[in-house]
Amino acid sequence: MSPSAPEQPTAGPVAPPGRRRGRRPAGQDTKDALLAAARTEFSAQGYQGARVRSIAAAAGVDAAMVNHWFGGKEGLFAAAMDLPINPEAVLARILDGALDQLGERIVRTFLSVWDGTGGGAFAALLRSVASHEQAATMIREFVTEVVFGRLADVVGPDRPQLRATLCGSQMVGLGMARYVIKLEPLASTDAATLAAIIGPNLQRYLTEPLP
Amino acid sequence: MSPSAPEQPTAGPVAPPGRRRGRRPAGQDTKDALLAAARTEFSAQGYQGARVRSIAAAAGVDAAMVNHWFGGKEGLFAAAMDLPINPEAVLARILDGALDQLGERIVRTFLSVWDGTGGGAFAALLRSVASHEQAATMIREFVTEVVFGRLADVVGPDRPQLRATLCGSQMVGLGMARYVIKLEPLASTDAATLAAIIGPNLQRYLTEPLP
Repeated sequence: MSPSAPEQPTAGPVAPPGRRRGRRPAGQDTKDALLAAARTEFSAQGYQGARVRSIAAAAGVDAAMVNHWFGGKEGLFAAAMDLPINPEAVLARILDGALDQLGERIVRTFLSVWDGTGGGAFAALLRSVASHEQAATMIREFVTEVVFGRLADVVGPDRPQLRATLCGSQMVGLGMARYVIKLEPLASTDAATLAAIIGPNLQRYLTEPLP
Repeated sequence: MSPSAPEQPTAGPVAPPGRRRGRRPAGQDTKDALLAAARTEFSAQGYQGARVRSIAAAAGVDAAMVNHWFGGKEGLFAAAMDLPINPEAVLARILDGALDQLGERIVRTFLSVWDGTGGGAFAALLRSVASHEQAATMIREFVTEVVFGRLADVVGPDRPQLRATLCGSQMVGLGMARYVIKLEPLASTDAATLAAIIGPNLQRYLTEPLP
């Protein structure tokens, strides 16, 4: 889109059959090619297994284009999933604080991100996940490897992954009820009230003894 | 579909412009017409406001066809939403028991219904709700009027509707995580364990003091 976008640093001479290599128009075409390749690679390899170099190669552009257009792997993932935020930065903010308020912090952060888009971005993400196996796989791989992996690190030894996914189930349901089904009065209850009510339920899932 | 389906009892002579009246082939055409009319009426009027006679008239068939093909209004709604169960019968089962085990009963019943379809029916319902405003409206009207209305009756005077919708958010999220995103280990955890873990969180939403 930007007229000052740099061109691809290494332009190959002729594209071999079945590979898209060589000089490409800078801008939207490059971004689209990277996003398409990213969706394929992230859903096949998972977030951590995906390699920026492989995505760039599949898109026929230099790996430097990923940093240029998306600021790196995290930003590329967020763009491929149409996320309004950088998920790793948000996760770092959630994990930085007292463990006994982790549940409330999760709800507060979640609502500040998605309420900020009027809920439309969450609804779009949900539609995508519900309709496309590839999107469901990308989200599953990402939350399992990155989000739940880190949450599990802080919650102790008793079934940390199950605790993290229970927490995830409440959050995806909150988003569904608030932004997609628009169930009242939940949809219009203020974020602080919801954080105070839902936070302790997440806290129980994460850190309290479970049957 | 059934060869012994009765024909429409009252066949009008000529269909007036813009109305589909008169004799129709019994069977799939009748069912399809009723389902289409039901989706329109339920999403416009809500579950309780919808009238079986209006749906039948819009479909151009006698109201007796609703009982014949769907067993009544509840069955017509379930079929229009592709639900694997009669929601009012399930609700009656959930509400019939000790109040202090209501949360666990909700989880157990929910999982027995949807696990029974391999989760595919829930995923299909979710896709429909996420993609079609009309489906989201039907579900919203139904759960608000019928499910949450009855739940609210039993949970006491403090914000009963909010409590019911919080409970709904956990359940839709459980379905989403288990059947659509297929988050492990939640997706393969046995139903009894999940009921024991999630039940108390629902119970807190429904009957315990909230901030």
